[in-house]
Amino acid sequence: MIQLGILGLGTVGSGVAELIQKNQETIAKRLGKNIEIKKVLVRDLRKKRPFIAEGKITDNPGDILEDSDISIVVELMGGEEPALTYIRQALASGKHVVTANKEVISKHGKELLDLAQKEGVNLFFEASVGGGIPIIRPMKQCLAANEIIKIMGILNGTTNYILTQMTEKNKSFGDALLEAQKEGYAESDPTADIKGSDAARKLAILSSIAFNTRITPDQVYTEGIDSVNLVDINYARELGYRVKLVAMGKRHSDEVEVLVAPMLLRERHPLAGVSGVFNAILVEGNAVGRVMFYGQGAGKMPTASAVVADIIDAVRSKNGNKIYCTCYDELNVMNPGLSTARFYLRLRVMDKPGVLSKISGAMGENQISLSQVFQKNTQNGTAEIVMVTYEVPFENLQNALDEIKAYRQVEEISSVIRVEGES
Amino acid sequence: MIQLGILGLGTVGSGVAELIQKNQETIAKRLGKNIEIKKVLVRDLRKKRPFIAEGKITDNPGDILEDSDISIVVELMGGEEPALTYIRQALASGKHVVTANKEVISKHGKELLDLAQKEGVNLFFEASVGGGIPIIRPMKQCLAANEIIKIMGILNGTTNYILTQMTEKNKSFGDALLEAQKEGYAESDPTADIKGSDAARKLAILSSIAFNTRITPDQVYTEGIDSVNLVDINYARELGYRVKLVAMGKRHSDEVEVLVAPMLLRERHPLAGVSGVFNAILVEGNAVGRVMFYGQGAGKMPTASAVVADIIDAVRSKNGNKIYCTCYDELNVMNPGLSTARFYLRLRVMDKPGVLSKISGAMGENQISLSQVFQKNTQNGTAEIVMVTYEVPFENLQNALDEIKAYRQVEEISSVIRVEGES
Repeated sequence: MIQLGILGLGTVGSGVAELIQKNQETIAKRLGKNIEIKKVLVRDLRKKRPFIAEGKITDNPGDILEDSDISIVVELMGGEEPALTYIRQALASGKHVVTANKEVISKHGKELLDLAQKEGVNLFFEASVGGGIPIIRPMKQCLAANEIIKIMGILNGTTNYILTQMTEKNKSFGDALLEAQKEGYAESDPTADIKGSDAARKLAILSSIAFNTRITPDQVYTEGIDSVNLVDINYARELGYRVKLVAMGKRHSDEVEVLVAPMLLRERHPLAGVSGVFNAILVEGNAVGRVMFYGQGAGKMPTASAVVADIIDAVRSKNGNKIYCTCYDELNVMNPGLSTARFYLRLRVMDKPGVLSKISGAMGENQISLSQVFQKNTQNGTAEIVMVTYEVPFENLQNALDEIKAYRQVEEISSVIRVEGES
Repeated sequence: MIQLGILGLGTVGSGVAELIQKNQETIAKRLGKNIEIKKVLVRDLRKKRPFIAEGKITDNPGDILEDSDISIVVELMGGEEPALTYIRQALASGKHVVTANKEVISKHGKELLDLAQKEGVNLFFEASVGGGIPIIRPMKQCLAANEIIKIMGILNGTTNYILTQMTEKNKSFGDALLEAQKEGYAESDPTADIKGSDAARKLAILSSIAFNTRITPDQVYTEGIDSVNLVDINYARELGYRVKLVAMGKRHSDEVEVLVAPMLLRERHPLAGVSGVFNAILVEGNAVGRVMFYGQGAGKMPTASAVVADIIDAVRSKNGNKIYCTCYDELNVMNPGLSTARFYLRLRVMDKPGVLSKISGAMGENQISLSQVFQKNTQNGTAEIVMVTYEVPFENLQNALDEIKAYRQVEEISSVIRVEGES
């Protein structure tokens, strides 16, 4: 009999309690042991808790962290503190820890894995990225023979739902966000999703594992989707692209490029078809080529599935060899200005002769070649220019746009979006 | 230093030797140990072998199986014998075994896992299904908290390449097969691929793990793609479907349904977009919902990626707890006649009044409802009837078709294909 302590009984915590009860028999057979929840830490003792007997509820963390019968602590509180302190304490007292906390792992993963190693216990966090999708363990084990060249992921279901609604239902960003909130896919304060910081945390975790070097969220160049306009989604479609919020990590010879940004992906790119709240991660290894992992990146039961799998693994590998921090390299993070990409641009200009030639002149001076240029939607003396560049350093593009912005014939640089995933 | 013995130096064996050399440094860092190939068993000693020093080649299996310095044996000969005997011998002498042999594992997996357990060693076979795609380990570990309800896979790259060529290039089955052979995607004797038996072996392995009950390839109802006609692919497209060779396992209350057959999948179904030689496996769990694993299901380096990952895992978990056979249930395999599905049918009939009414009458008598009926391509006094049924037991359909076949107005029942994956 394995006894668990759970910290936090919100959506995921309740899912874990429900799943352990629902699949009790299957899990016991697979594991050869029974799993029992001994204590659960909550904030409000008076609230009714399905799947948890009353005597098992506590509001004192010591009831879990200091109980020597509890060998596995499951941290599902979210947020940096006090979760971090509790995880440290649990590891230091020789308990295995399973967590879904992307904030703690992306910021403090190395320290905590090193502590786990010192204590000879497991620290698992499969649920911190991609909800129920197996990705951490496959990267650490199944793809261990590969040097990872590139990862590209749709790691945030909220923004993917919004972009899908805009694309398929022709909704504005604002309407799609309201819809997502109504459906429970977006929080009332959706900033972390919309601005890309949730995806940046997940990318930091994945990149650290993929490239064996420590990447923290603040090192990830991050753009949100709040600037993505329905007009761009429709132009992108005309050009054969879908707009997705993509988290991308690329290995260069001695640097790592990490960014989260809206990107135009070719319609037949494996990530382009990932719609709604689904997530997917495309990993490119130097032996395996491309593999993709797809599924529900959030939600009560999918996330609980990953947490309980970690619990099962913690039991199975209690006495065996463990995989700890694999960040044995110290690679630099590439200056985002030097990172190269193709770009989609949309500008509003005065509908007068010579404007396009001025703009393309500024591009040329900054070594930017254009692969496609369209003039669109001319009305009231203004015209919309849509351009797609060849691959250029971001810095060059910014310089060119600074010049172009200063022209009095240019009313607005409406959109600048990366183009990726041509194949 | 970990010393390996490799049995067989064909395509995959050479890939493994190349990969161990190419990513040596990365692997050593991840593992904290060096891996060295000590001996390789080959048939022809005189052949030149890149990546393997001459003194390491042998044609005597005893040089590997009886060498106590070799702790891991990698079996890559393929075929049932002598691979099975060598694997047994290796396990019995306390060596870990890694194999890509789907024939041996699908037929003898339980016996071999039990032997490994008795000896306290690992038996890993990630490369036996889906080439480089992580699927065995994710199912055994990452999805361990789930009861698996259904698996659907495109498990054979050759047939998927052929069907893709037929769909996208409008080629006949014969021409597409020739093309596949020319490109090296199909063997000169393509029977095992075309007839579905390769996919059936892989499905037997996946189903045994998913449903925790032993399934052998002979229990899998198997149809090949040799009866799939370009006409059907085009009609399917008109109806919004793609034709794929699907391996499907479904858990019923106390039975398991396992079949390999061409199926019509809705265009937006996750497996419908898997094209060319790519493979994908869609797994549905009662907590995680649907997850999909996608990548190259065959080929030298992708398969080597899975084999070397297994080697790494065998080293890592040498002294730890191991996962052995998880077939603790004994479920019956469903009689294929009782398995229900929707069906697409194509018949050639005389173009005379009353024929359709006779046919639909026979359907009705066998409790078969039709969801769609089209009359197509009328010429020379004959017409083509295309029908899609609602869900019916296969047995009822066969009875109806036996009656219909006997009508003298019916010239031919040209095609009978399952319809799956509406969502």
